[in-house]
Amino acid sequence: MVQATTLPRNEAGINAAIDVLKQRFGEQLQTGQAIREQHGHTTTWITNQPPDAVLFPTSTDEVAEIVRTCADYGVPVIPYGTGTSLEGHVNAPAGGICVDMMRMDKILAVHAEDLDVVVQPGVTREQLNTYLRDQGLFFPIDPGANASLGGMAATRASGTNAVRYGTMKDNVLALEAVMADGGVIRTAQRAKKSSAGYDMTRLLVGSEGTLGLMTELTLRLQGIPEAIRSARCAFRSVDDACRAVMMTIQYGIPVSRIELLDEMSVRAANAYSGLDLPEMPLLLLEFHGSEAGVVEQADTFAQIAEEFGGFDIAATSTAEERSKLWQARHDMYWASLQLRPGAKGISTDVCVPISKLAECVSAARAKAEEMGLLAPMVGHVGDGNFHALLLIDMDSDAEREAADVYVGWLNELAISMEGTCTGEHGIGQGKRPYLQQELGGATRYMAAIKAALDPENILNPGKILEI
Amino acid sequence: MVQATTLPRNEAGINAAIDVLKQRFGEQLQTGQAIREQHGHTTTWITNQPPDAVLFPTSTDEVAEIVRTCADYGVPVIPYGTGTSLEGHVNAPAGGICVDMMRMDKILAVHAEDLDVVVQPGVTREQLNTYLRDQGLFFPIDPGANASLGGMAATRASGTNAVRYGTMKDNVLALEAVMADGGVIRTAQRAKKSSAGYDMTRLLVGSEGTLGLMTELTLRLQGIPEAIRSARCAFRSVDDACRAVMMTIQYGIPVSRIELLDEMSVRAANAYSGLDLPEMPLLLLEFHGSEAGVVEQADTFAQIAEEFGGFDIAATSTAEERSKLWQARHDMYWASLQLRPGAKGISTDVCVPISKLAECVSAARAKAEEMGLLAPMVGHVGDGNFHALLLIDMDSDAEREAADVYVGWLNELAISMEGTCTGEHGIGQGKRPYLQQELGGATRYMAAIKAALDPENILNPGKILEI
Repeated sequence: MVQATTLPRNEAGINAAIDVLKQRFGEQLQTGQAIREQHGHTTTWITNQPPDAVLFPTSTDEVAEIVRTCADYGVPVIPYGTGTSLEGHVNAPAGGICVDMMRMDKILAVHAEDLDVVVQPGVTREQLNTYLRDQGLFFPIDPGANASLGGMAATRASGTNAVRYGTMKDNVLALEAVMADGGVIRTAQRAKKSSAGYDMTRLLVGSEGTLGLMTELTLRLQGIPEAIRSARCAFRSVDDACRAVMMTIQYGIPVSRIELLDEMSVRAANAYSGLDLPEMPLLLLEFHGSEAGVVEQADTFAQIAEEFGGFDIAATSTAEERSKLWQARHDMYWASLQLRPGAKGISTDVCVPISKLAECVSAARAKAEEMGLLAPMVGHVGDGNFHALLLIDMDSDAEREAADVYVGWLNELAISMEGTCTGEHGIGQGKRPYLQQELGGATRYMAAIKAALDPENILNPGKILEI
Repeated sequence: MVQATTLPRNEAGINAAIDVLKQRFGEQLQTGQAIREQHGHTTTWITNQPPDAVLFPTSTDEVAEIVRTCADYGVPVIPYGTGTSLEGHVNAPAGGICVDMMRMDKILAVHAEDLDVVVQPGVTREQLNTYLRDQGLFFPIDPGANASLGGMAATRASGTNAVRYGTMKDNVLALEAVMADGGVIRTAQRAKKSSAGYDMTRLLVGSEGTLGLMTELTLRLQGIPEAIRSARCAFRSVDDACRAVMMTIQYGIPVSRIELLDEMSVRAANAYSGLDLPEMPLLLLEFHGSEAGVVEQADTFAQIAEEFGGFDIAATSTAEERSKLWQARHDMYWASLQLRPGAKGISTDVCVPISKLAECVSAARAKAEEMGLLAPMVGHVGDGNFHALLLIDMDSDAEREAADVYVGWLNELAISMEGTCTGEHGIGQGKRPYLQQELGGATRYMAAIKAALDPENILNPGKILEI
């Protein structure tokens, strides 16, 4: 298991910056151990590396002031949302100041006519959707956690709806960001498309806090569809299920969600969420459209599924049943952990071209069995993305090492299939060697961009790139 | 009228590089005046600034070798596709070597199951779609011209289908590119989504040849829809037509095309393309989906249109009628020029939030009338993007100056409406001052990226940024 790397600390600078910031921000700056550890990495298997202080700004000006102070003293700045990222993104390997964005939680403007909204980075996706519901609008990107929108943009998150609505890359129209020198920029206007200069929006989306701190996001919205229909379908094997997915996508059915749960995951969901789903490989689907449209989509899918031996096909347009099903899907991480109480979960995140999906999932399952690893699998399979959640006793050297071998093997397999080691979780600390394997020469130019925009390497150091 | 700026020439370097390249590439390098002028800017109003030589590489290795040689001698490199860009993108204000990509015109791999294709940059969009037709696939991005896909990616092009399928930003999965130091990179794998590192794909898309030369593109494809239905609808005013568009988009009808032609444009189309469309503000639409779906979409649109006084609504699913209509739309640039033979066309390209569309179009028309400018208007109005084509006698100082004033006025109006000066044509030479107005502080960081990736400023100098 890769331990989080430690980087050299600028002890004097850190102490001086904390003094200055404490004077300026008073109780908005906290240095207690509990709060610091809570802002180091906690949701995952990666060693916790707490920052030296946590600051809670309430405005863009305050963020700019914090960054300028840290730049003056050469001190790391680590932006923080809900802390639900999975690859050590919020760790502080060189110490420094964690900037907790969660007090910047205002929805600044809803432009219903333009289908967009302007939010501060600490707004969570559920907060936004609750706010929008009365206006018949929603924001589609839904990683499992109730993450902050700033964090979701920073990791280029996606989730179950991405097959229809894209990822954060496709749904952030514009950003306001504080750069490493404290300069505040706006990356784009609010027009739906633009050819005006370099795409700074997309450069910041997915940059994991290493190029700038997002202080305002303009997001694309969708109208709540006239009709929503859910469906589930069991298969005799994961391979059959994946083949049905491949055909569904190739056939062009505009599915909004198409999720795979393997037997083990279904068992976990039944136990955790009180469901009685058939304990077989299962596809969960959702269709958005007109009343007639969703029935047509669901029927076409059912025909395809039957060709691949799908059975126990059940569809519903009842809101209550639907939300129970999708809540269970969103709770899968926690449900799976219950399969082995006390174990830590290590999630893989490979994403492959859909033509390779069945082969990749089958190989991943066979390898886990061969290695004796408990690894329930779920997937945003419409995108070719799936997660094996390795349930590991972290006190066992042998298990930790086996997990390390497995993760490396699967990432390499996906890369060899022209896929990626990370469909949606990001690189963080944990996947830096695999980014090298995957994109090789391009990382040299990424490093040049990082050096140009953050020459002192103060923005979230030790993430994405091995510098 | 902004004349194309001239930059200092590195005369000795240019001569030395041409000698070396001539020895290496023989007849692949051309220096005749006609061919050089043909590779300077021709389709537009901007002064032609021909390169010193034109080179026709046939492989990535050759492109890398050309760039390395030019880097050694500090000589500009200007990538060239079909030369149909509109803002002086292919001019050579400091001289240098034009790299004509049109001999790199191979379709390297079609992955029908994954709905993607790998092409060389000189493949044109029509060539690609002809090739794909038998497989039931198509590439949706369609600027008017039969442009090269490399050029389309470089300018972040879009066109009539963008309202449904997005722009080049959304449809390039990955790139191979030669960077300023001659290094060859691959920006991403072939997975549908990824969170692996900085989004080098999106950084290069729209960078207009200033950050790297694209040598291979992996593009997303779409299945040819089961059914396609076209419709047209006349309105009593452009304002009414725009309001119908706004409602159609807000209502969530997944229109594939929704194009506006004003009276003057309709008149031009009728004359040029032998049509008998009603000479009123007109919307042309296309719907993609199932047989039932497209009828439902067209009916819902018709109801909305009628609310805004739409009349003479005609829909058809006949392929022949459809293609005649859309060919006429694609020929609008040439058709409009016929309204004033001998005049040059200067196209504006503003794009505003859809809620501002009616106001912006109406103001643009009123201003043109007030200034006595002949300016037929067409628009990809579903995206809030429209073009006024100013028909100008370039021999008249007064007209050139009026056009300059008008373009500046409209760009500033769009920017004040939170829109952009360019929805799809790009910045090139012509719009550099407006990029400054639009994104202000962000251009400083764009310049830092440019300096980091191309420290000698050899890649298409004098474009996008005022450096």
